[in-house]
Amino acid sequence: MKKIAIIGFGVVGSGVYEIIRKNKDALTKKSGEEIDVKKILDIRDFSDHKESHLFTKDFNDLLNDGEIEIVVETMGGIKFAYEYTKALLESGKSVVTSNKELVATHGEEFFRIAKEKNVRYLYEASVGGGIPVIRPLACDVSANEVVNVSGILNGTTNYILTKMFKENDSFENALKNAQELGYAEKDPTADVDGHDACRKIAILMSLVTGRKIECEDINTKGIRNVSAEDVTYAAAIGCTIKLIGCGFVENGKVSASVEPMLIPASHPLSSVEDVFNAVTVKGNMVDTLMFYGRGAGMLPTASAVVGDVIDIVRNGEYNPYYSWGDADKEKIIPYEDINTKFFVRIEEAQKEKIASIFPDVEIIKGVSDYGFVSPLMSVKELDEKLTAAGGYISRIRLFR
Amino acid sequence: MKKIAIIGFGVVGSGVYEIIRKNKDALTKKSGEEIDVKKILDIRDFSDHKESHLFTKDFNDLLNDGEIEIVVETMGGIKFAYEYTKALLESGKSVVTSNKELVATHGEEFFRIAKEKNVRYLYEASVGGGIPVIRPLACDVSANEVVNVSGILNGTTNYILTKMFKENDSFENALKNAQELGYAEKDPTADVDGHDACRKIAILMSLVTGRKIECEDINTKGIRNVSAEDVTYAAAIGCTIKLIGCGFVENGKVSASVEPMLIPASHPLSSVEDVFNAVTVKGNMVDTLMFYGRGAGMLPTASAVVGDVIDIVRNGEYNPYYSWGDADKEKIIPYEDINTKFFVRIEEAQKEKIASIFPDVEIIKGVSDYGFVSPLMSVKELDEKLTAAGGYISRIRLFR
Repeated sequence: MKKIAIIGFGVVGSGVYEIIRKNKDALTKKSGEEIDVKKILDIRDFSDHKESHLFTKDFNDLLNDGEIEIVVETMGGIKFAYEYTKALLESGKSVVTSNKELVATHGEEFFRIAKEKNVRYLYEASVGGGIPVIRPLACDVSANEVVNVSGILNGTTNYILTKMFKENDSFENALKNAQELGYAEKDPTADVDGHDACRKIAILMSLVTGRKIECEDINTKGIRNVSAEDVTYAAAIGCTIKLIGCGFVENGKVSASVEPMLIPASHPLSSVEDVFNAVTVKGNMVDTLMFYGRGAGMLPTASAVVGDVIDIVRNGEYNPYYSWGDADKEKIIPYEDINTKFFVRIEEAQKEKIASIFPDVEIIKGVSDYGFVSPLMSVKELDEKLTAAGGYISRIRLFR
Repeated sequence: MKKIAIIGFGVVGSGVYEIIRKNKDALTKKSGEEIDVKKILDIRDFSDHKESHLFTKDFNDLLNDGEIEIVVETMGGIKFAYEYTKALLESGKSVVTSNKELVATHGEEFFRIAKEKNVRYLYEASVGGGIPVIRPLACDVSANEVVNVSGILNGTTNYILTKMFKENDSFENALKNAQELGYAEKDPTADVDGHDACRKIAILMSLVTGRKIECEDINTKGIRNVSAEDVTYAAAIGCTIKLIGCGFVENGKVSASVEPMLIPASHPLSSVEDVFNAVTVKGNMVDTLMFYGRGAGMLPTASAVVGDVIDIVRNGEYNPYYSWGDADKEKIIPYEDINTKFFVRIEEAQKEKIASIFPDVEIIKGVSDYGFVSPLMSVKELDEKLTAAGGYISRIRLFR
């Protein structure tokens, strides 16, 4: 019998409890041992819960319980989650989390402690909800040098963009609709401005490179400025617009970003709709793989958490393949040095100047203005050329 | 230093050699130990190869080499591969294979020996080429009861069907084109008649249920009879046609089949084109996941083989989660008892009778005949009703 504890009985934490109760027999078969929830830490009152005796408000009840070998941290936030996770790992317990902010911010420190104590710190649920992506990167593609990871990593923004494309909704209406359905928070900043996706691509690229990639080094732009006219242009050039977190490894250096991108209709990411998430991984041997599924929600996310718990029940010893070390700022390619293409919108009056600066591009007419696909060059060079041409209305990067 | 050997230096075997040479540093980092190819068994002459000293024609050179701990079997076929694999496992070596026929036919016996000898028998490359699907089923979705696995498991037939849909090619022309491009064999039977997909869904459902699912219990139909008119009907009802290997688990019983199916355009499998493969897995907690990528080809398939080798270098002890036991015929749901829907094509003269037997269906006109979607019922019941209505021209099952 393996005893576990849960910290934070919110959406994901209660999902973990539900799966362990509901799939008990299957879990025992798959773990080789029965898994039981011994304690649940939450500051809220659960005296009405049918297993109210499991709940405690005192962290020490978990920390000092020698029977509890694995703790699930699904409380979110940084302050308490950091202190609790550190103390638990130091006391020789393994920790499983869905807390992407914590993994992205303090992962490297936790891996160090986990190594010292020969326990595990796992975080499959922190990226892509129920979609397996951490373990495939750590294990399945290990024969490859991973050269690119790109993903639709946030369901809220994907739902909004899908509504804008399919129903010609404005951003504001689509957001309101997402809020009504519970897909978006009252304060949608973390989703809409790309911070959530930023933490997730930070985790994925840290895992791929073995070095912490910090959010401050990831150029992050959300979808607030994607307009109905952008949607029209995108359709005209056979693309959809998706909020993409992506990272490239080139000659040992790394670039990472979060921004709306134009995806050709032929690419599998373009048909990922509504709240679904998907991650593509490109290895130098296997070419492009895609992992698709529900990127959020109680049971899908809890499914990933419990998958990690089972992994630890099967093998509780430290495993270096899920870890990374400290950041190495010298290995970061700044956003302005990325070589890429953009779809650039310009005023009618700029047409001639643009045509002389970019002689080979085709300028197409939109509803109220003009647009063109810029040639492959660094962001910096493009910016200089556009400044010389009198600026631009907006620009969206092309997915490659 | 971990010494490995390769049996069969064909497409996949030479890909394994290439990856181990090319990604050497990355592999050492990811395995924690250097991996080196010590011997290669192939009956053909490789005296011109730059490392010709590695080659041998004598199996005993591998079997009796105590330094070789892991053997990659990429020779294909049953007879020799079976004898070699059995002898290697019995001598305490782990074996990694891409040989789907062998895994589907003798897997349960190899797992038994592997358990006795505390070594591993892994087969990620046997299904979906480079796409991770075995390990995700064995590990990532372990918190779930898997209720359905469905996949586009054969690239050749998917290429042919894509040509038929996109370019209105006939089956014969598309097959010829696939043969010219090297996607189809001169004798395309194994692909076109569904035998290849059958072995793969047999492996997946054996893994999911823990019991061998035998190919003889999988109703298998290929794509030879898919016609241009079927394509027209499919488009008319918003579907594509894909060769799908699928299996369902219901109340502890299993049904599995391989057949062309109508896939709604909204389903992610419908946009899997050309030689790409994809597998969807539905768990009772995580809902539907999809894994997508190159289902064949030298380096993608070899990437999966080397991923298994690295897994064994990291941990060479027997692991029960990749295994299954003997078949249990009583747990098989016969094809005729499956509850499903079909698109049925009928003669004009049958219209009235069909309308009276199936009062709620809408009969649509094709080019030369008529068609309708049958209500949900068992295959047996549908067959009886269709016989009463004077038979049918053809029928294609609807994906669910």
